[in-house]
Amino acid sequence: MSHTPSRSSFPEMIMKKRDGGQLSADEIQDFIDGVTSENMQKSQIGAMLMAIWQKGMVPEETMELTKRMMMSGEVFTWPKEWVMVDKHSTGGVGDKISLILAPALAACGCKVPMISGRGLGHTGGTLDKLESIPGFKINLTSDKIKQTLQDVGCCIVGQTDALVPADRTLYALRDITSTVDSVPLITASIISKKAAETLNALVLDVKCGKAALCKDQKDAQILAKSLVTVGNSLGIKTGAVLTRMDAPIGRCVGHTLEVYESLECLKGRGPDDLRNLVITLGGCLLHMSGQSATLADGKKAISDVLMNKKALQKFQAMLEAQGVNAEISQALCSEKAEYFKYLQPAEYQTEFMAQDEGTVLSLDGMVLADVLHKLGAGRSKAGEKINHRVGAELLVGLGQPIKKGQAWIRIHHDDAELSSQQQHELEGALNIGSAASYQDSPRVIEFLLPN
Amino acid sequence: MSHTPSRSSFPEMIMKKRDGGQLSADEIQDFIDGVTSENMQKSQIGAMLMAIWQKGMVPEETMELTKRMMMSGEVFTWPKEWVMVDKHSTGGVGDKISLILAPALAACGCKVPMISGRGLGHTGGTLDKLESIPGFKINLTSDKIKQTLQDVGCCIVGQTDALVPADRTLYALRDITSTVDSVPLITASIISKKAAETLNALVLDVKCGKAALCKDQKDAQILAKSLVTVGNSLGIKTGAVLTRMDAPIGRCVGHTLEVYESLECLKGRGPDDLRNLVITLGGCLLHMSGQSATLADGKKAISDVLMNKKALQKFQAMLEAQGVNAEISQALCSEKAEYFKYLQPAEYQTEFMAQDEGTVLSLDGMVLADVLHKLGAGRSKAGEKINHRVGAELLVGLGQPIKKGQAWIRIHHDDAELSSQQQHELEGALNIGSAASYQDSPRVIEFLLPN
Repeated sequence: MSHTPSRSSFPEMIMKKRDGGQLSADEIQDFIDGVTSENMQKSQIGAMLMAIWQKGMVPEETMELTKRMMMSGEVFTWPKEWVMVDKHSTGGVGDKISLILAPALAACGCKVPMISGRGLGHTGGTLDKLESIPGFKINLTSDKIKQTLQDVGCCIVGQTDALVPADRTLYALRDITSTVDSVPLITASIISKKAAETLNALVLDVKCGKAALCKDQKDAQILAKSLVTVGNSLGIKTGAVLTRMDAPIGRCVGHTLEVYESLECLKGRGPDDLRNLVITLGGCLLHMSGQSATLADGKKAISDVLMNKKALQKFQAMLEAQGVNAEISQALCSEKAEYFKYLQPAEYQTEFMAQDEGTVLSLDGMVLADVLHKLGAGRSKAGEKINHRVGAELLVGLGQPIKKGQAWIRIHHDDAELSSQQQHELEGALNIGSAASYQDSPRVIEFLLPN
Repeated sequence: MSHTPSRSSFPEMIMKKRDGGQLSADEIQDFIDGVTSENMQKSQIGAMLMAIWQKGMVPEETMELTKRMMMSGEVFTWPKEWVMVDKHSTGGVGDKISLILAPALAACGCKVPMISGRGLGHTGGTLDKLESIPGFKINLTSDKIKQTLQDVGCCIVGQTDALVPADRTLYALRDITSTVDSVPLITASIISKKAAETLNALVLDVKCGKAALCKDQKDAQILAKSLVTVGNSLGIKTGAVLTRMDAPIGRCVGHTLEVYESLECLKGRGPDDLRNLVITLGGCLLHMSGQSATLADGKKAISDVLMNKKALQKFQAMLEAQGVNAEISQALCSEKAEYFKYLQPAEYQTEFMAQDEGTVLSLDGMVLADVLHKLGAGRSKAGEKINHRVGAELLVGLGQPIKKGQAWIRIHHDDAELSSQQQHELEGALNIGSAASYQDSPRVIEFLLPN
């Protein structure tokens, strides 16, 4: 009687990972098939996620996991001649880079099928920000996405049900089982979705600092390395940029205010740190995808389309392709836009004064995000409504002198006034000291680019 | 606005254990309440079980877990004057001790509400063994259990639905999530069920060796210590005996054959190692429960009721109270019983011959159990049917001389013949060598008794 060795059962597979073993390609396929088909019980998925959290995965396992997750649903195909690029950020405060970068890349001749997410916890979501523009639709069909890429070159849309269904199931379970912050699971979740977009090049903005998921630079490096390794192993030119996330990016935080600031940047204005990040990340993509000979050339090309308004034109076309009526999009993109004629302002604006004088040493983005969250800008769990109008404008920059009694922040809010606790917390976000003790820390810490 | 600190959510609780933290009594109560009420999702239970498997629990946590599991269902109450005792074994090959010990303790004036289990994997189950006696019923109501204890003094029954429901749920999930072999989870599972029996004294037979769940003596000591600590902390005089489990206990393995051997022991005959284990474990219980001044006195009392047939009378009365008709029970318990007139024999008996001569150095109970399992005596998963008739009689003992060609084992089987692989495996169970290299290893390794 011949005996065909059977593949390992779910309990055997869990046991292997529990004990720190390496899962085979077959086992990982069975795991993801089990998740998608619902043949694997939820308790087993929970135990497997915790075993992966505890014991990690070697790059081969993470690569296989990513590939199988990608293959659990629809995978886009594009005309051969299209140069497909995208960016993903691990999330920060005031991070509106996608809104500027997608049209800038389109203006450079790339196609950007940016599938984005909503905000959760202290990090804002690109989709939420765009939805503060009246009429903006985030749900496009695959055909409409293709058409928009053909006509405009970029779109920023929500994940469809057909795309990477295994990730949706696993993400929901990771959330309730406290297994979110695991390098292989984060890697597979991010890269599987980007790989299903079928890209030529991908850049990861891996943030680290007080207002980032990775507080520690070493952790951020480990995650960045994992993302780059797995992305490249799946045939996508993948690079990562480690960036500092202590103070918010730019001067505005909050959905409506970030749309305003993005438009300013697209008009060649706005804060330097924001523009520099867009230029750096875009430059990496142009270089990796072969559109520019060097990183410096790529950065110059992005800078050019910001300054000559070509990126702005793409943004306007994208708004219209995604449901915004032409009058609004034209008005917002005009040189001297009356933004709050079309974007909804909060009911109140309150300025807060510095309690001390000296130099602005740091601005804690995490504290600011927490206060704004409580004022309605944030979401504590998926599906919750948020208030697009709530936000903050920073009125001072890092390293600048400040006087006692000088307004340093303007809070946009709908509640009549901030509680004393909120005011107290807010004060804690501003750190003033002597000019001698100020250290300028550039946002870009390190590049991890493919050869 | 006052703020009542809320208890931690399930994800927070999982995170705490994931990171090696100590769960509070409130958190453990919420965990077990969540399991019982089904408010905790299965994925969360799976993740929590894996986190406990990975990070363990301190004795306070294990104690609280055990207590909360016990309190998840019915807890027995007895007349004050009853001396309630029980034994639990971690499972071995040929372990029929409960069948002899329960009536022996009853004959010494104790009450023994023995709630027992079925076999799984290589270990046999007490209930399965008893069910090879025609008419024996394992499901008694709580009232019937009480009545049987009143009239006879002992019963051996299956777990009711009302008893420790949290353990039933958790055990089923541990089984499919590969989190069975965790000291705190094993401890809570065993002691919660025994605590729900409301005992004065409990002895644990913690086995270690090739044919035990704990292969390693150190692991067995850790488990024994945990069981003793938690049992005593719940107010039960709890002791443990570490016993060797390499060769099977006694000479018979298999359900029907073990009933036969138990009856022989109850008639003052049968193998010494079996009788000595019964005497040791029973002696511990009589001593711990205050029925005997010393351990030696307790052992003598047990030995006496085996020799004077008082234990045998209790066994016969228990069989009748649990559904066996009087003709059969009397016949089985008579001095010169024709056992296989009432117990069902297997269709075939095949003897196997030694391939070598010398001294029997060891008999591998695990190998033997695996062969019998394949012949139908075992159960690979809960609920499977088993063949009570399949079994083995060892025809030689450890340390005895053996000649080449001498029969050393008699297999009772229903398939026409053993496969060549089964025969080959069986041969591997017998280890023959020089008399000089034989070492007598007593079954009892160590006592862990309360002060």
